This record gives sequence, C-alpha cells and structure tokens, in this order.
Amino acid sequence: MEDNLIGEQDVGGGRRARGGAAARRAARTSGSAGTQLTYIKREVPVYEVLNEEGLALIEANADTILEEVGIEFRDDAEALAMWKEAGADVRGERVHFPKGLPRSLLKTAPSTFTQHARNPERSVQIGGNATVFAPVYGPPFVRDLDGNRRYATIEDFRNFVKLAYMAPSIHHSGGTVCEPVDVPVNKRHLDMLLAHMTLSDKPFMGSVTAPERAEDTVSMAKILFGEEFVDQNTVVINLINANSPMVFDDTMLGALKVYARNNQACIVTPFILAGAMSPVTVAGTLTQVLAEVLAGASFTQLVRPGAPVVFGTFASSISMQSGAPTFGTPEPTLVSYGAAQLARRLGLPFRTGGSLCAAKIPDAQAAYESANTLNSTLLAGTNFVLHAAGWLEGGLASCYEKFMMDIDQLGMAQKMAQGVDLSENGQAMDAIREVGPGSHYLGCSHTQANFQTAFYRSSIADNNSYEQWQAEGQKTASQRANELARRWLENYEGPQLDAGIAEGLKDFIARKKESMPDAFT
Amino acid sequence: MEDNLIGEQDVGGGRRARGGAAARRAARTSGSAGTQLTYIKREVPVYEVLNEEGLALIEANADTILEEVGIEFRDDAEALAMWKEAGADVRGERVHFPKGLPRSLLKTAPSTFTQHARNPERSVQIGGNATVFAPVYGPPFVRDLDGNRRYATIEDFRNFVKLAYMAPSIHHSGGTVCEPVDVPVNKRHLDMLLAHMTLSDKPFMGSVTAPERAEDTVSMAKILFGEEFVDQNTVVINLINANSPMVFDDTMLGALKVYARNNQACIVTPFILAGAMSPVTVAGTLTQVLAEVLAGASFTQLVRPGAPVVFGTFASSISMQSGAPTFGTPEPTLVSYGAAQLARRLGLPFRTGGSLCAAKIPDAQAAYESANTLNSTLLAGTNFVLHAAGWLEGGLASCYEKFMMDIDQLGMAQKMAQGVDLSENGQAMDAIREVGPGSHYLGCSHTQANFQTAFYRSSIADNNSYEQWQAEGQKTASQRANELARRWLENYEGPQLDAGIAEGLKDFIARKKESMPDAFT
Repeated sequence: MEDNLIGEQDVGGGRRARGGAAARRAARTSGSAGTQLTYIKREVPVYEVLNEEGLALIEANADTILEEVGIEFRDDAEALAMWKEAGADVRGERVHFPKGLPRSLLKTAPSTFTQHARNPERSVQIGGNATVFAPVYGPPFVRDLDGNRRYATIEDFRNFVKLAYMAPSIHHSGGTVCEPVDVPVNKRHLDMLLAHMTLSDKPFMGSVTAPERAEDTVSMAKILFGEEFVDQNTVVINLINANSPMVFDDTMLGALKVYARNNQACIVTPFILAGAMSPVTVAGTLTQVLAEVLAGASFTQLVRPGAPVVFGTFASSISMQSGAPTFGTPEPTLVSYGAAQLARRLGLPFRTGGSLCAAKIPDAQAAYESANTLNSTLLAGTNFVLHAAGWLEGGLASCYEKFMMDIDQLGMAQKMAQGVDLSENGQAMDAIREVGPGSHYLGCSHTQANFQTAFYRSSIADNNSYEQWQAEGQKTASQRANELARRWLENYEGPQLDAGIAEGLKDFIARKKESMPDAFT
Repeated sequence: MEDNLIGEQDVGGGRRARGGAAARRAARTSGSAGTQLTYIKREVPVYEVLNEEGLALIEANADTILEEVGIEFRDDAEALAMWKEAGADVRGERVHFPKGLPRSLLKTAPSTFTQHARNPERSVQIGGNATVFAPVYGPPFVRDLDGNRRYATIEDFRNFVKLAYMAPSIHHSGGTVCEPVDVPVNKRHLDMLLAHMTLSDKPFMGSVTAPERAEDTVSMAKILFGEEFVDQNTVVINLINANSPMVFDDTMLGALKVYARNNQACIVTPFILAGAMSPVTVAGTLTQVLAEVLAGASFTQLVRPGAPVVFGTFASSISMQSGAPTFGTPEPTLVSYGAAQLARRLGLPFRTGGSLCAAKIPDAQAAYESANTLNSTLLAGTNFVLHAAGWLEGGLASCYEKFMMDIDQLGMAQKMAQGVDLSENGQAMDAIREVGPGSHYLGCSHTQANFQTAFYRSSIADNNSYEQWQAEGQKTASQRANELARRWLENYEGPQLDAGIAEGLKDFIARKKESMPDAFT
C-alpha cells in the first residue's frame, strides 16, 4: 500500500523528470513532501490585524516621516538628481518627499506580474492570490549531513539548488541559497547563476552585490532566454535591502537601477531587527517599513515606469538582553500581518517571512519558530516567500536537514491554502448515510474513492506507535530528514538544457573570470 | 540586566506567591514563559475559512443527518424518554431530530459564562473574546525528566498540577493531566481532584468516567466553594466526548446529566480521527461534528435549561497507510477553523486544538505539529483550549519537557492576541524623529522607556551566537526545558487554603475510599 500511495505523488524533479526511471525510483524511495504546484493560488482569505483606522494612521505617519525626516540615498548622485527632478526636496543626501509623491509614482508599478522560468510550466505569478516559495538566501555557513557546521562551498550551493528543484512544494530556485565561500567573491555570482540556470528549470534570483554583477545576471539571462525575450519579460527577481533605518546605499541602488532599467523585478525590503533598526513597537516599525518601501519602490518607477517591484519586509526583533535577533515571536508576526495589509493598499505584491528561526540545530526551537513564522506568512497573503526552507541560526547557516523538514511544512501550507472543498464529494453526505452511528469510515466507498488524496502525507513525521518507532531506531525528525536529503541527492536527475545555451553560458563565465583577478574580500 | 528584567515578570505562582521570598527566588532562576493573565481577552480578529454559503450548506447538511440518520443515545432509557418528550422521533436507541429542534433547545444555553476558581482572581470567562489555556488531558504515560517513558503516577499528576499553577500562560488547572495509574481506578478521581483543589487555585475539571464520580466531583466542589455557591455558580467544566460517529454512551450521558443538573459546564466534543470516525473530507467532518454537537449540547438544555455547554471539537486525521492519528496537518486545521465558525453561529463557546502532535519525543516534529495546531487554535477564536501544554505521542504521554516548551509558546500566543498598540507610545514617532537615517534605536529614549516589555522574551529559545551556544554545552531546546522544569518543581510554593476546607476534603476522600474495594480495571 505504501508503495502505491507514494507512486501517486509527483516527486523528484517534477514534470520533466516524471517519466524517467530515475524519477520513478526517487518516487519509491524519497517521500513526497506534497504535490508539485507551479505556485499556490490561495483560496482561503487573508488574515488582517489592523482595521481601517490603524492603517490610515500608519500611512499618515509614514508620509510625515518621508516629508519631515526623509530618506538617505547614499553615494549615488544620479539617484539624488532623479529625485530632485521628480520634485523631491533634496538636502545633501537626504531626500524629503512632498506628501503623496511616492504613492503617485507607484501608480505605474504592476500589482501582479509573471516571472518567467526557462521551463514555461514553471513560470510564477508574483502578486494577487499567488504565493511562491523560495529557499533560504544568504548564509555563509552550512550545517551539513555529517552534522558539521562549516563554511559553505559551491558544492553545497549546487546541492541546495538540486533539492529545491526536486521539492514539489518549492516553486522557485531562489538566489544565494548559501554563500559559496570557496569561490572568489568577485566571481561567485557567475557560478551561482550557472547552477540555477542549469541544475534547475525553476525561476531564480539575480546578483545584487555590485551593479556590474547585476549586469552579468542580465547578460546570462539573455543567453538563457534570448535577448528579445528578456527585453520584454521579467526573468529575474532581485533582493534590494534598505539599510534601515532610512538609508539606501550605493550598492543596492546600483543593482536596483540595473534591474529596473531592464524591466526586471526588485524586492525592496527594509531588513528590520526591531529595537535596533526600527522602534521597539509594532506600529512604529510598520511606519518606518512603509516609509522606506515607499521611497525605494517608487525609485524603481523613476528609473523605469512600469518596472515590477515588490513590497518587502524582513521582520525580526532583537533580544533586549543580548541584542541577538529573535524569530517566530509575536511582534514580528504582527509586523508581517500589518505590512501585508499596507502592501495590498498600495497595490504592490508582498514579500515577508519564511521558515525563520534563531536555533543553532534543527530541534524543537527551530521548528516552533519556523512554524510560527510560516503560518503567519501564509495567512498574511504573502506573495513571495524567501527563506521558505533551510534557514537556521538566524540566517547564518543553510541546513540540509532543516531544508527537508521545511519543505514538508510547505507542502502542508499548499494544502491548507486550498481551503475547504464544498463539492458534493467534499460534503460526503453519502458516506455519513452509508456508515451511520457506531460504525467506522475505513472501508466505506467514499473513503475508498478518496483515500489517496484525502489527507496530506508528511514526508518527515513519524505517526507510528511508540513501539514501532522504538524498533525502527528511535529516530528524531532531523535524523529522518537527514536520510531523506541523502536519498534525494542520490536520485537527482537534472532538467534538460539546449547544448548551445549551456555552452554559451560557460563561455560567458570563462571570459568574465579571465578578465578579473581573484578577490576573496 | 538579566536579573532586573526577569524580576519584572510574574513568575512562579502568580499573585498569591508573588510577594514571597521563594517566588522571588523562582523569578530569578526560572525564566518567565510570559506574563500572568487570568485569561486571554483576544483583541485580534478571528480567522475564518468558510463563507456564508459554505456555512449554510454545512448547517443544512447537519440538519439532514440529524433528521434522516439520527444519533444514538445508548443504554440510557432516561435520555431516550426525555428526547421523546421533547418531540424527537425515537426508534430504539436512535433519536431522529425534527429540523430545528436542537437549535431551538440551545437558545437557553449561555453564549458566555464564568467558571469560578477558588481564588476569585483566577476565575475565567468561557466564551466571547476570551481564550483559556488548560494542560494536556488523559495520557496514561509520562515522558519523565530522566528521559524514561513509563506509566504515570499520582506524583506525576501532582507535578503537572504544580507546573500548571506556576505557568503564567496557563489559566486553568485542567483535569486528567495524566492518568495516575498507581491509584485504583475507582478512587483515582478523588486524588486527582484533591491535587487540583489544594496544589493550585486555578479553575479545574471534573471526573466524567462514571456518574458517581461526577457526583463526587460536585460534592468535593461544595466542600471547597460552599454548597450555596456551587448551586448558583459554575465551578467545574467537564469533558463529554461523543463516541463518534453519532453515538453518545451511557457513561458520558450519565456524567453529562450530573453536571448539567448541577449547573456545571459540559464540553460536548466529537472526538474525531477523520477517515475513521468521520468522512475523509473537511466539509463532511464538519457536518458530522455539527450534528453530534447539536444533539449532545441540546441534551444539556433538556436536563436543565440554561446549563453552560461548550461546542467542542477534537480534530485529527488518520494516516491512510497505518491508521495512526496525525496532528498539525492542514485538514484538521481547516476543521478547527470551520467548527469555530459554526459554534459562533450557534452562540456557543468553542473548544478545540491545543499543542497536539504525534511525535514520540519533544523534537522538531513535536514542535512543528504543535505550533501548527496552536496557531490555528488561537486565530480560530477558540475559547477553551485543552491540551495546550504537555501533550506528546498522540495523547498517550504527558511530557515534562514538552510542557515547558509549550507554555513558552502559550506566552507568545497571549502577546500575539493583544494585537497592535496604536497609542502615541505605540506609534513611536518621536523615536523615529530622534534616531533618523543611518543610526540605531538601541539607546534612544523611546527604547529606554519600553525595552522591558517591548518584546516577548522566550524562556526556552537560545538566541545567542553559535559560539556561545557551543560554549554552554550545545543544548537542545528539550534539554533547556528539562532544566527549567526541574527548577520550577524545586521552587514550587503552593497557594494557601483554609485548614478546615483542606480537612473536609481529606475526610470526604477517606470515607469514600473506605467504602470501596480497590479496582484496577
């Protein structure tokens, strides 16, 4: 029975690989972590914590901050000139915004757009009732499958791209799934992009660590998708963090300008550890977040009206004892819910949350914190979810075991988002009539007809008896996740790619690498 | 700084003990797990998954089931006679309900009531925007502080009562916090009640395992509260499970009648493992749940119009591979949200959820599943939350470590439920103005004024650096929970109780025990 059921699920690489023997073998041995969706089309309502009065208050306060205090655009004379030209009051590097200017500029930003994948069946919608899950972004360390915490390598990077490709509940290949510290810092982006472009056919993110690396991203995308296609479509989405409080620096502005000019998407994200980078209150934090997003997102429209831009929020608090960031706690949850509401009122797609935690190992702390974050991320109606799987240790480590545990939770989120089936089959009146009082539903015809898809089947949870669990070695969830990750990596079979394109990408990278000395800082 | 902050919290027994040296010692050494509330007064909205059309459909279907299929009231001639008298169509033990009869009977049930505690400051509201957290109920096993899984004893029982008394985020002492298997089964309820009545001053639950044990509960409550007070007030709340599908048995009906006649509260709860005891679909399960609750809850009003009754739902699915119950998965989550809506439309208080899991140990599986359950329990607007702390292994074991981890999460839920502070202080405009771009908020006057209460401080989470965590022994969350449980139990200091009442309770129990031979089955 077990074999049969698992065979029904889409596992191990999705549509392309589904027909192959390797995929079937993967399906038999790997556990599913849910059904492959291109992205979630949410059919349950959003949850909202602020009423109209609260929202209007925060919006008015943000406008006041933008006008009175202003936002700094640092080391970027071009940006300051553009703001002056647009009617802002520029004093030094500080831009003061006349009331309504950012909102008025944002009228040209799309509320929903498509990010194309090289496999058209993988293209995702960003905005509206869509939710897209992408892996962890940024950790310099990994927690590997031998239980070591060490610097990440390009091999780890490729492994996480492979796992994200195989995970039915991950819709997006992400960006810096870990920092490949063994590759020179000025060449790293090339190898990372190559991995996303060749080892996966899901959509991916571009480099933002320097304007020229953003240019490289666009150049490589043109090799992959064709020049004309990239000119007319959005094929990369890119993380532009504000330097909170109330600063955008030249690195981020440089990358933003490259992407916006090329009609590629920017996620403008105040990276907030509340108490350090924003006030210690939820309403104060929301006010600052809104002000920063209004300034940064509207700047994309100065660069190119109509360029896709996402309202981002990274919400955490700090421990008032140690200054360390905390995750999965009530205050960031409220910030996420509130920010999602502010984004909807602005008509912009929204990014927040993920499976965030401060835990150092994939233990109960990691899971409580991640589940708290993910539950609110989903119900807030978040459109783009970075860090949806693999995040550990406040984002300092990408963890293989945590990745496998998180994608199982994402599978549950996908199912939850479908809401309640009210069809005749969903109502199940025949089943209730057939079974009647004092019997059971195990063998009734409605159960027979529906049991394969009725309930989400976890790839990680052990639901067996204590005795059976004991007989099977008393494994923890993370031990089961470890075994699953190993099996998936053994069974990985990549998507096909036109040989000419693959060659073109390798040539580009070889030429680029030759043109630069190695840099490690 | 650490000492100062922890000293600000209410820890270790709440108001009564707060002044004592032991309590202060507990405060310094124990970690807080939040602020002591009498109960949660939810200030955030509820989350709803069904629209008006879906709700009306399920209600109509439930009415059809009640009329066509009917509900069995087994081995209770009195109950059947009462239903016949009330106008139902009774065929054998099967009661068929004319459309609208249960709803019409339920008009006398209160939508909100007070369950009194012997310490009036601990009395809780059941219904409306109130949420009350009570510990795990029913496990025959414990997972103890030495890592053993073994049968529970009366000492374990007392320990869990003590921990629940000390936990600031637990509002209720609960009932069978574990089964004290070392006490004869026919005398067990007496020792359990004595523990709740003497070791805690929070409200508690009565015995339901036999009508005479329910009578004993009422008798002991009269010693504790005074006869007249019990006649006029609700002082115990009691778990009446339906024998799903669509059966109430004589044990439960017997206890229900005792409590309802005495104006004590019943939580009428279909105990559902969907796929076995209800259809495999959410809508089908909700239909059956509603039908069962309508039948059982309205029966309390036949016994005594106006008797307090709660709409209960215990939602789980089974694994279609093994038949084992699963928790924290999407389908039971949707059932809980939907059932809460149905309860509100009926005007009854609602019970569901808790911190449920199938895991055998307090690992990541336990935490993911518990957090998923608790998040939906809170946002559903659940009024009475049984199993809010300590539940492990599908309810087969009460776990000390899990208890400590869960109460930390309950502390977060309390904070989350307060919503967003929109006061002038909450808006923090002065802070934003004072700090400005490129600085930080750590030392600003608004932070100074608010840092002690700004963010929820976890008693379990380790938010320190990897290096510090390593230097401190690389502890898991459950290891930290273990240490905390030991410290709390060492620092326990009970509430005061009038010596005459204590003597009266002991006399009652002694006389009762003498009147019965020991029974162990």
